[in-house]
Order: sequence, then C-alpha cells, then structure tokens
Amino acid sequence: MIILGIDPGTATTGYGVIESSGNKCMLIDYGVITTPSDAPMEQRLCMINNKIEQLIIQYSPEVMAIEQIFYHKNAKTVISVAQSRGVAVFTGASNGLQVCEYTPLQVKKAVVGYGTADKRQVQLLVQKILVMKEMPKPDDAADALAIAICHAHSWRLQNLLGGSK
Amino acid sequence: MIILGIDPGTATTGYGVIESSGNKCMLIDYGVITTPSDAPMEQRLCMINNKIEQLIIQYSPEVMAIEQIFYHKNAKTVISVAQSRGVAVFTGASNGLQVCEYTPLQVKKAVVGYGTADKRQVQLLVQKILVMKEMPKPDDAADALAIAICHAHSWRLQNLLGGSK
Repeated sequence: MIILGIDPGTATTGYGVIESSGNKCMLIDYGVITTPSDAPMEQRLCMINNKIEQLIIQYSPEVMAIEQIFYHKNAKTVISVAQSRGVAVFTGASNGLQVCEYTPLQVKKAVVGYGTADKRQVQLLVQKILVMKEMPKPDDAADALAIAICHAHSWRLQNLLGGSK
Repeated sequence: MIILGIDPGTATTGYGVIESSGNKCMLIDYGVITTPSDAPMEQRLCMINNKIEQLIIQYSPEVMAIEQIFYHKNAKTVISVAQSRGVAVFTGASNGLQVCEYTPLQVKKAVVGYGTADKRQVQLLVQKILVMKEMPKPDDAADALAIAICHAHSWRLQNLLGGSK
C-alpha cells in the first residue's frame, strides 16, 4: 500500500510518500511544497492542489494520511493552515484517496512509542524506519513521513485485530 | 458583472448570485449548500466544491466575493470553517474567478452605511437593494448576498476613483 503523508501549511506543506508492505515501510519520496508569501491566497491554494495532484498521478497512493490541527496561539496562522489543509484533504478525496487523520500524539506514539517524544526523536526514528542515510529535512517533510508511517502502523494493527483494512 | 457571494461554513455555506450594472444590483439566485454532519469531512468538502462549481457553470460569475474569517471563541468551529473556506476560494480561483475578500465591517458599511449595524438591519437593506418581496432567508444566504453587494459597491467606487476595475 502506498501512503501519501501530508503536513499541511500555507507557506510550506510537507509531503512524504512511502510503501507499506508486511512489517516494512519503504521510502519513495519526500519534500515540501512551497508557495510565495507575496502571492494571493487563492493562487497559493491552487499551487498546493496542483502539486498534490502531481504527486498522486506520479505515485498512485491509496491513502492520504494527514495531521489534525488544533488551535494554538497564533489565530491567523491556524486559519491559514486550516484553509490549506481543507484544500489538501479535498484534493486527496476528489482523486479517490481514502483520507485518514491523526493527532500529533498518535503520530509520536506510532513512530517513537510514546507521546512525549520531541521533534528530533521522531526524525531519528523516521530515518531508522525508512533506512535513510541522513535525517529527513526540512521538518515539514520529516513530519509528513512520520504521519505516513503512523498510518502504516495503524493499518497493520487494524489488520492484526481483524479489521477490514 | 455577475458576482458570486459566499458565506463559508461546513454544515452550511451561504451563496448569493447578483448582477451589478451601473448603480443597480439585481438578484439572480441565493441559497445554502448544506452537508450532513455525519459525513466525513473530506466528503463534505467535495460536496461544497461540487455545488460551487455547479453555480459557476450555471451563472458564469466573474468574481467570487467571500468574507474573511477571524478567530472566535469556538476554535474547533473556526478550523472547520477555515477548511471549507479554503475549498471555496480554491474552487473560485481554479475556475478562473477573481477572488475578493471583505471583512464583516466592510460588508456592513457597504450595505447599511455603518459598521455597527446588526444582522436584521443588514438583511432589511439586502431586501431593499435587491427589491425582494421577502427578507432573504436563511441567515447564511442573506450574508452571502450582502457580501456580493459589498463587492458591487467596492467595484463601483474603484471605478469612480479611476481604478482599472
């Protein structure tokens, strides 16, 4: 199963594509979608949609795994991120992908084993699980890979427990 | 010029289509796009995209006028509304519409003449400006018509001041 992990944002949307097979996760691609801060929001949303569609065409993932967002101190940021997230989720669903949401806690637990892990610990484990020579960079791309791994683990667990997926 | 006003939301997205010609605004259509609360978010976002595209095909508006959103008490609601708004803005832009944003204050000033007007005053003026027999209902549809009227006024003012639009 090919999984497209997305860490949503307006200036930077992280993506990570992995293949989950048996107990293993294999790296396919990762990176960030960047949009210029001086471009109108509607153009930036179109760029995010366009690039995610390109990834879907290129890698034919079955699933989009995406992080849930929560309100934090900067209200303007959260509104902007939520708009981009809406477009990302729409792009996945309108292209036939199953969309699965995970909280940051679920992602940390799935990748590192406990929910209080810090960013560096998550990145180290992502590197180890995907047998990468270097730590995945930048942070948004690493986060997207972590979300994709989280879905792979969750899916495997559901299979073991006799779920349909 | 045909204007599509949008009052974004997840459960209910208001829309209002008007034609602005000279000093006059004429009503074309208005209503709400509703999505079932028990449907997954990705399906609801696809429904919003689909219905807005239908309106664009049906009425060929040149402009989407949409309200800016701000953080308010219910953080969960604002994230959900922002996601839907992102899809609405994307849908307008990807279909070639110019997207114009207005604050609630700008909308009230344009429709009623002052920013402290209440909801009922706005609705009464919308009814009067568009020569409607009854007050526009529900609220989200009335708000969408008010946003469309706001754009018509703003566009006229820019023309008078020698702007290019």
